[in-house]
Amino acid sequence: MLLDSGVDIGPVTLGYETYGQLNAQGSNAVLICHALTGDAHVAGYHEGDVKPGWWEHYVGPGKSIDTNKYFVICSNIIGSCMGSCGPASINEQTGQYWGLDFPIVTIADMVRAQRALILHLGINRLLAVVGGSLGGMQALQWVASFPDMMGGVLALATTSRHSPQAIAFNEVARQSIMSDPHWQNGNYYDGKRPDLGLAVARMIGHITYLSDESMHIKFGRELRHGGGFAFNFDTEFQVESYLHHQGHKFVERFDANAFLYVTKAADYFDLDLSRSDSPARQALAATTARFLLISFTSDWLYPTYQSRQLVNVLKELGRDVSFCELTAAWGHDAFLLPHEGLEASIQGFLGGLE
Amino acid sequence: MLLDSGVDIGPVTLGYETYGQLNAQGSNAVLICHALTGDAHVAGYHEGDVKPGWWEHYVGPGKSIDTNKYFVICSNIIGSCMGSCGPASINEQTGQYWGLDFPIVTIADMVRAQRALILHLGINRLLAVVGGSLGGMQALQWVASFPDMMGGVLALATTSRHSPQAIAFNEVARQSIMSDPHWQNGNYYDGKRPDLGLAVARMIGHITYLSDESMHIKFGRELRHGGGFAFNFDTEFQVESYLHHQGHKFVERFDANAFLYVTKAADYFDLDLSRSDSPARQALAATTARFLLISFTSDWLYPTYQSRQLVNVLKELGRDVSFCELTAAWGHDAFLLPHEGLEASIQGFLGGLE
Repeated sequence: MLLDSGVDIGPVTLGYETYGQLNAQGSNAVLICHALTGDAHVAGYHEGDVKPGWWEHYVGPGKSIDTNKYFVICSNIIGSCMGSCGPASINEQTGQYWGLDFPIVTIADMVRAQRALILHLGINRLLAVVGGSLGGMQALQWVASFPDMMGGVLALATTSRHSPQAIAFNEVARQSIMSDPHWQNGNYYDGKRPDLGLAVARMIGHITYLSDESMHIKFGRELRHGGGFAFNFDTEFQVESYLHHQGHKFVERFDANAFLYVTKAADYFDLDLSRSDSPARQALAATTARFLLISFTSDWLYPTYQSRQLVNVLKELGRDVSFCELTAAWGHDAFLLPHEGLEASIQGFLGGLE
Repeated sequence: MLLDSGVDIGPVTLGYETYGQLNAQGSNAVLICHALTGDAHVAGYHEGDVKPGWWEHYVGPGKSIDTNKYFVICSNIIGSCMGSCGPASINEQTGQYWGLDFPIVTIADMVRAQRALILHLGINRLLAVVGGSLGGMQALQWVASFPDMMGGVLALATTSRHSPQAIAFNEVARQSIMSDPHWQNGNYYDGKRPDLGLAVARMIGHITYLSDESMHIKFGRELRHGGGFAFNFDTEFQVESYLHHQGHKFVERFDANAFLYVTKAADYFDLDLSRSDSPARQALAATTARFLLISFTSDWLYPTYQSRQLVNVLKELGRDVSFCELTAAWGHDAFLLPHEGLEASIQGFLGGLE
């Protein structure tokens, strides 16, 4: 597969899961794209799981994305480490871990790989592509790359152009990893891993996933052990405890190099819709897909104005676009959490496409 | 000096600078409190300096804080490393660097030390206490601790209660330092310093000092070397270059342990004004000082609503308080930058106190 960087890579491995049945016409397939560090396990329990898939609330029999009606596909993005090929995979030509020799991938590359999977599954046209955050970027890139291949595009809590502030957070997170002496320029697979750097990187991310408001509600200035201040540098405030927990949990499931790759892909993402002759704008002008864009009031990582900018372009182009800003205190994380308005929006949009 | 932690510390060293002349009545003294990593050098040039003091635009002969009229004092906070005692100082009892044996200090402790300096300079009552950000917290703590000692309190871009989001950013910055293997539990003064961890900590801070809007204006998605993407992990976007520069410049002038101490003091800061019998609330009820609070529209580290909460308390208590939200794109940094509205506000407020 030829990547945006000009590198030809193959074979490409994709980890994926499916739910429900493809109908005889092959017309009921919904592709769900996961966020930055997500995986293909969107719903349900694997044997031994204590937690269900990451979008269990919205995906399943009788749910908003009803697996009794739709054939749902979710695949891990390339560059990641949850079943698809990336820096933590073995390079078959050398027998060694790829590390930083793995080529840099873009959102468009991730989508190219997903398209090969879709065709492999015998599907020529998706009913819809759905995703939030980095998954929303993939959904938008899908229609920009393959405007004839879907009936609808549902993009949540996302942007068509990664902002300098979002790039800044990602870069500081990357610097934290690359400053860890165990990182070793990415060659750490046979030794100690850059866990401390990766944990700090994840903590930075978690601040951007919450909001000022949700932090007041969840933590306030509560101390972990009540009483007065400890007057030392141990974990003291509840919000500190939360971040440490998130950081340390993350290093058990995610690879530091993969974190570099997926954040870089996000930073590169820009559909370049301001130029009237950009390929993405021409694709959006040509597609017959319907669009639903959803933002959340307290999401400051991909704020509402960024969705609105895209909505304005789609309207200029005469596209069938609906936009909804949902009220939620939980910041960027809101798209992952139960929300009645979101349930209704998703169900209504997919129902209208059938 | 007895600290909030219960530890008695002495002797206490304070680095400070003064500008202008104290008048015969001793009634024209203005104390300026600096921000997190600032210093006593508020204005003018020392021999060999290429850059002036940090508030040069506002402090000097004929300026908003007119050193022809006022006797201006600025002192480095304790716990820091710019002339006052802190973890990077020598413990006179052991002849060794203090490191983490230096006691944790609070904003109230910083103010206690400043009060000793003021009395040492022969001043019983300040015309005004002025400060932005952590300096604003000190100004508020001054009136809460010593309500009879000033005619006015001018607090900019600050809060009376450090929010969980602000604590979260500080904690991740501290974790970055403490994760650096050169940190060595604070005992690094005879070896390599935790420069990489400190640089990342500073980069996190700088994101919070800017704003989404100012990052769009300053950097957008501009690349450092024009052309297309590099497809590697080198410094690529201008915003990345800015952050790296700020991080690496910072380690040349600031001590990593001191960064832990001053951020911890910020996190502990809470005047506790919600309880009607809190000491700070009683002090605010008793003071005759006038107040001017100023916030900036794009400051999301200490947003306007936090100043408003304090203004509401002061109004409930019948205090003479003015509040001004200034329009500025530059985020929290705005209080350090030239702003006509800020010039006029400061000058008018001080003039009204004479």
